[in-house]
Amino acid sequence: MRMSIHIGKTLREIPKDVEIISHQFLVRGGYVHQYASGLYALMPLAQRIIGKIQKICHQFMQQRMGAQEVLMTNLSPEEIWKPSGRSVSLGSDMFRLQDRQKGSFVLCFTHEEPVVDMMKSQISSYRQLPVCVYQIQTKFRDEPRPRAGLIRLREFLMKDAYSFHKKEDDFEAYFNEMAKTYELFFKAVGFTNVISVKSDNGNFGGNFSQEFILPTEIGEDTILTCQKCGMIANQEVLETPSPDGACPQATCPFEKSKGMELGHIFHLGDRYTKPLGCYYTDEKGQKQIPEMGCYGIGITRLLPAIMETHHDEKGPIFPLTVAPYEIHMIHFKGCFDKAEEIYQSLIGEQLEVLWDDREEKPGAAFADADLIGIPFRIIVTPRSLEKNMVEVRRRDPSIPPTDIPVDQIINFMTQALDTEYKLYLG
Amino acid sequence: MRMSIHIGKTLREIPKDVEIISHQFLVRGGYVHQYASGLYALMPLAQRIIGKIQKICHQFMQQRMGAQEVLMTNLSPEEIWKPSGRSVSLGSDMFRLQDRQKGSFVLCFTHEEPVVDMMKSQISSYRQLPVCVYQIQTKFRDEPRPRAGLIRLREFLMKDAYSFHKKEDDFEAYFNEMAKTYELFFKAVGFTNVISVKSDNGNFGGNFSQEFILPTEIGEDTILTCQKCGMIANQEVLETPSPDGACPQATCPFEKSKGMELGHIFHLGDRYTKPLGCYYTDEKGQKQIPEMGCYGIGITRLLPAIMETHHDEKGPIFPLTVAPYEIHMIHFKGCFDKAEEIYQSLIGEQLEVLWDDREEKPGAAFADADLIGIPFRIIVTPRSLEKNMVEVRRRDPSIPPTDIPVDQIINFMTQALDTEYKLYLG
Repeated sequence: MRMSIHIGKTLREIPKDVEIISHQFLVRGGYVHQYASGLYALMPLAQRIIGKIQKICHQFMQQRMGAQEVLMTNLSPEEIWKPSGRSVSLGSDMFRLQDRQKGSFVLCFTHEEPVVDMMKSQISSYRQLPVCVYQIQTKFRDEPRPRAGLIRLREFLMKDAYSFHKKEDDFEAYFNEMAKTYELFFKAVGFTNVISVKSDNGNFGGNFSQEFILPTEIGEDTILTCQKCGMIANQEVLETPSPDGACPQATCPFEKSKGMELGHIFHLGDRYTKPLGCYYTDEKGQKQIPEMGCYGIGITRLLPAIMETHHDEKGPIFPLTVAPYEIHMIHFKGCFDKAEEIYQSLIGEQLEVLWDDREEKPGAAFADADLIGIPFRIIVTPRSLEKNMVEVRRRDPSIPPTDIPVDQIINFMTQALDTEYKLYLG
Repeated sequence: MRMSIHIGKTLREIPKDVEIISHQFLVRGGYVHQYASGLYALMPLAQRIIGKIQKICHQFMQQRMGAQEVLMTNLSPEEIWKPSGRSVSLGSDMFRLQDRQKGSFVLCFTHEEPVVDMMKSQISSYRQLPVCVYQIQTKFRDEPRPRAGLIRLREFLMKDAYSFHKKEDDFEAYFNEMAKTYELFFKAVGFTNVISVKSDNGNFGGNFSQEFILPTEIGEDTILTCQKCGMIANQEVLETPSPDGACPQATCPFEKSKGMELGHIFHLGDRYTKPLGCYYTDEKGQKQIPEMGCYGIGITRLLPAIMETHHDEKGPIFPLTVAPYEIHMIHFKGCFDKAEEIYQSLIGEQLEVLWDDREEKPGAAFADADLIGIPFRIIVTPRSLEKNMVEVRRRDPSIPPTDIPVDQIINFMTQALDTEYKLYLG
């Protein structure tokens, strides 16, 4: 991609009233366009990042969990939400509307009811279980307080998976395997410090859940870590946290810290399968209700979370697996033709390159490159070309630059990228 | 994928009140689950097909048209739709709703207004033009008469691209290039007979448009072909078709036939850029309004359209590029272990295989395979295994089967698939 036609205007100034660093970068780097509170268009850089996150997520869900991809509708007849009681209990968090025949619909807040409505026509025998379906699909939530760029939106992408199991059989093993998959997925998209918090209360109708939380000062969740027994809990999930912060299990003090929820997986038991009438026939010919689990990841939110985790004061420093491009190329005055030649040879090898082909001063070009955060850089200068070299730098200023002969740049970059990908994908 | 855990129950009987063949196959093959009139979940087979169509569409848009992918929201403040007058003119075709603060929103029927709202903050100079952005995104339309399975839905996927140009400059060349890209795309997903119908009226605010129509008896559009001058037109698009069917240009008789619109591309002129205040500065420093075009493909609708085009009385016969899997494997009694071995070696080479690992009678297994329509089949029988062979058949009964040695099946299939892909992708 040539910067001269790339859609995403950068801003030098920090926008007013934008306190959170990821939100600042999203605006300043031309990643998003705001339509209203909690409603943002993803412009090309953001869409490329979200696209890579989705691709990695599909691989983990299909190859590691054997989950089958589906696509349920966003518009859902209100009727489907009545047996579970959530048509009422989700209240004004769910957008509601009528069609031209005055039929009542909701915009799906989540998809437990639609997935059970679909799966109850599919599951009949124990032989079909366990089974897991998933989608990466828009969710709509009428948030009272949308927040901080892409962190709390009214419309966003979620990966939601739903598994169905024989009664008291393999649920827990599958759930634990999903938790392991989540850990690998979060590592693959660049997180090294996501903590996992179990809870065994029944808030969500089942018996236990596990949250995946990124420790960050800007998080909305309060994590309680017991100083004595080591137990970690989300304050919100604890049913009755004692007002003085004492551990309900060990009567010892909690330390409070902040975190952002990136994923949450739930044992749902028969909370939805029972009221919606989903059954299977077991080995003895008896009608049984399947156990169910659901597994969410807030896909859109991962972009600001990655920015919060990986940045310096100049902009984000993207992990390669989710970077909008692999290489950012900048040339100095007098090097346009050689840069064009290098650009063509790199994209000819399917490498992803953003080339700043404008007539910008180096200072402006580097400031934009810092805001875009692509991990590898190729700098073409008259001085380096004299020696038939180009300079390969990293967005991460702690990694020293290297001079590479122009005719070896493809080989060098291919190997450097391969090595870097392996750090995330193993 | 093993058929024993594949989600998609097949039905032997033709469902009642379902007249259109693609709709019958979608229901009988377990491709879709209906929530309400015009609202269907895509189950795994349909989602895999739609996923492949999307992938091909992305390649053509990015590589052939240089379009940049974005993702605009579905929820859109009604305010954005006022300057163009479409908040009123789209009337009850557009779903409308209020948020908890009583703000008025629409669910996007199309995205001209949101895209101009976004691009007007991005385009400032003639140097940035031409530029094209696109998305594959959900569209919502409150259709008075949803129809025939996936043919006319209230929620569906559309590829919509929007290009911006300098005044009276390169618009027409880009438009014609897009038309050519559409022809190649439709060929790539398996259509051989899509006809292209130009019109030069001003119904959509611009000067001309071009429709891509699949001739089919079940189509909703009436195509008029002039028997004398050869002109083809969509009856709906002609402003004042004479009641006796006379050609407005040549006063000669039209022949009527039916067709289904798969894509439509429009010159929009300044229909949206002007009222929404999108400007650029030209070479002379003058403020100008960009010319705009929009380019739609009804992604979801392509699935039933492909089924209508490619089927026999037993089920669909998918073109390889959009088939849910490349190979459908069936084994006879006593061959399970050998089939498992072949299955593992095929998927080990990244070939896409649906293996019917159930204990079904061959008749039932073949009936299901016919409904699923995967183009290549491997049949493992005791008789063929005696000679260390398997049989490779095609879903298309007109292509004769071949016996292939078991130890050559990977090579044979890889080459056969390569050859077949080239028929579509050139």
